[in-house]
Amino acid sequence: MFKANDNFSKISENYLFSAVSRRVDDYCKANPGVDVIRLGIGDVTLPVSRAAVDELIKASSEQAARETFVGYGPEQGHPFLIEAILKNDYAARGIELSSDEIFISDGAKSDLGNIGDILSKDNTVAITDPVYPVYRDTNLMAGRRVITIPCLASNDFVPTVPRDVIPDVIYLCYPNNPTGTSLTYDQLKVWVDYAREHKSLILFDSAYEAYIQHSDVPHSIYEIDGAKECAIEFRSFSKTAGFTGLRCGYTVVPRELVSHDGYCLNDMWRRRQCTKFNGASYVVQRAAAALYTPEGKLQVKENIGYYMTNARMLIQGLADAGLTVYGGIDSPYVWVKAPAGMDSWSFFDLLLNRCRIVATPGVGFGECGESFVRFTAFNSRMNTEEAARRIKLLSKHTQSII
Amino acid sequence: MFKANDNFSKISENYLFSAVSRRVDDYCKANPGVDVIRLGIGDVTLPVSRAAVDELIKASSEQAARETFVGYGPEQGHPFLIEAILKNDYAARGIELSSDEIFISDGAKSDLGNIGDILSKDNTVAITDPVYPVYRDTNLMAGRRVITIPCLASNDFVPTVPRDVIPDVIYLCYPNNPTGTSLTYDQLKVWVDYAREHKSLILFDSAYEAYIQHSDVPHSIYEIDGAKECAIEFRSFSKTAGFTGLRCGYTVVPRELVSHDGYCLNDMWRRRQCTKFNGASYVVQRAAAALYTPEGKLQVKENIGYYMTNARMLIQGLADAGLTVYGGIDSPYVWVKAPAGMDSWSFFDLLLNRCRIVATPGVGFGECGESFVRFTAFNSRMNTEEAARRIKLLSKHTQSII
Repeated sequence: MFKANDNFSKISENYLFSAVSRRVDDYCKANPGVDVIRLGIGDVTLPVSRAAVDELIKASSEQAARETFVGYGPEQGHPFLIEAILKNDYAARGIELSSDEIFISDGAKSDLGNIGDILSKDNTVAITDPVYPVYRDTNLMAGRRVITIPCLASNDFVPTVPRDVIPDVIYLCYPNNPTGTSLTYDQLKVWVDYAREHKSLILFDSAYEAYIQHSDVPHSIYEIDGAKECAIEFRSFSKTAGFTGLRCGYTVVPRELVSHDGYCLNDMWRRRQCTKFNGASYVVQRAAAALYTPEGKLQVKENIGYYMTNARMLIQGLADAGLTVYGGIDSPYVWVKAPAGMDSWSFFDLLLNRCRIVATPGVGFGECGESFVRFTAFNSRMNTEEAARRIKLLSKHTQSII
Repeated sequence: MFKANDNFSKISENYLFSAVSRRVDDYCKANPGVDVIRLGIGDVTLPVSRAAVDELIKASSEQAARETFVGYGPEQGHPFLIEAILKNDYAARGIELSSDEIFISDGAKSDLGNIGDILSKDNTVAITDPVYPVYRDTNLMAGRRVITIPCLASNDFVPTVPRDVIPDVIYLCYPNNPTGTSLTYDQLKVWVDYAREHKSLILFDSAYEAYIQHSDVPHSIYEIDGAKECAIEFRSFSKTAGFTGLRCGYTVVPRELVSHDGYCLNDMWRRRQCTKFNGASYVVQRAAAALYTPEGKLQVKENIGYYMTNARMLIQGLADAGLTVYGGIDSPYVWVKAPAGMDSWSFFDLLLNRCRIVATPGVGFGECGESFVRFTAFNSRMNTEEAARRIKLLSKHTQSII
């Protein structure tokens, strides 16, 4: 008589974005023809850069001929992409890694979820609050104890290292989703030092690295001394280059990383991937490699610049409406405090009903996200301008609220 | 102090195919310029069908324009592909399934490995022996007890339902990898009835379904009455249509499937995929959908026919050499008994040294695979003809052995 994994009873049935999308659908049904601007879910709107698409088409065409057909590749990724990553994302910043420390995948979400396969169920896991729900849910599913580290406006959303319970595993995402804030070298160093002192493992989600504008914000955790002994880094081409539909990302597992019980995590992750994964799509890996050509780099930079201009517009509109705003500087996310006394879902409803704008309720990211909403800068310029205009009007219509 | 998942100590460090490839590399280094024919690893050699490549190129081109760009899709797959699967793979065989019972993924290997996420660690898992190593390794990694059901020449490689230990979860792969044998309706019905009687779960790997030639062999386990209450089915476009490099497959989780402790597995798998997966690549899903057009179907049929002719050639060559051969009828795999008294690796070495042919040692698939090797029909016609010719010669050179 087979039994299910009953840890699933610990997670809520609905994923945050499904709940949002249901509420928006209901609104649209009740108000047909109304022009709703979606600044909720973090999907991009700019197309994939020309350099990547050209390479995608070329590699696709080659699949029709026997001489150029490519079947199974190495589970950990094709060397041409691994070498481009090593050179551009790491060596260029003075970080030395070897090719067997990079693992290409179909995206950071898969890797952030699957990494738990190589870790003991007995580890206590710390997540910041608010947080990307995947960290919490995947660990609850696996039966791990999860503790939260509050990130509040009062501490500038910088998490404080825990002193009561020492976590074995710590998820950090910087630039942060959802708050849009970042950590400086010194602030991240505090965490690396803490992890080394306590032999904790940091799972560093660096999906928004390309949005960093300030020179005092590290692009990789390996820019901090000693991080190779205590951190795994996750990267994504989704928000960097519009690969949300194509699917490609990668994970760095340094060989220095050894568990308390003596396991080399690099060996384990390779074994996990060779057994449960067959490599990311070859044609998509070719497209990803094109992002590292001079043309590809320029196009990525232009796209990031476009979204960052959107972020500035949103920040301005929200500030003009008298709202308090965080993030959006080294990140495509803007984190907005609801008007006094209003909770996340009420503010979400106000924005939907009065401005016809979809945001994401901050409480969906954790208790400490209550009374905030998240805006994304990924919509078109036109829609973002219109959204900023509507938000400004909000202050006139609802002066008593704001 | 973080700890690793120490169940990894229960699995061997090297994956079967890596061990084979190392031995072949050593041989090639010692014998430079020698023309080795690889009939070991199950990768295809025919290119992707024209219909699929045309659609892949079209969808790729569309990613460069804002109006036609596609970002995140539903984690469980795009409706256009799900509908094509429902209509062609199921409704056409009289099987009724609904669109929320199909889950598109990046391949059957991922799903076969990840399905354990929704099952209790306390389940006892039965695998046939010999078997695709992924079933065994993923369950050992998760800490489950694994028992084996011998598949021997003496029972025509048809597994007998276990009576001493009643397994909670049973992996069946038909047409079978590695033996190349299949189960008839009546033989598969025995397993469905057994699973229903004991409330066991069958994980049915149907990756080689497209190779079935005989009308008494079921293409889907759901052709057997009651299977929706007890079976999950895994399918792949890899061997069917040359998608080994592109990556696409799907899994069917019927809504009727409820665990002994009352969980609906369909809900759980959806929750798992929504949390740890972001959908298969959109452009690849478009290519997969093209396989269901009249043109695509014809091209798939031609490719399968090509490989089945290869299989017949291999069977003939092996029989001419006086060897005993199984499989290769409804399957691209040919399972060959080593000459009397010879073990798998010795026969592997003999084939490599005398025929310059790479097979896969049967013992790599389990103890009951000892003294067998597996040949695949996936090489080119020219190489397969040459391999058959060399094998025939083997009998003259080594008459004392065979």
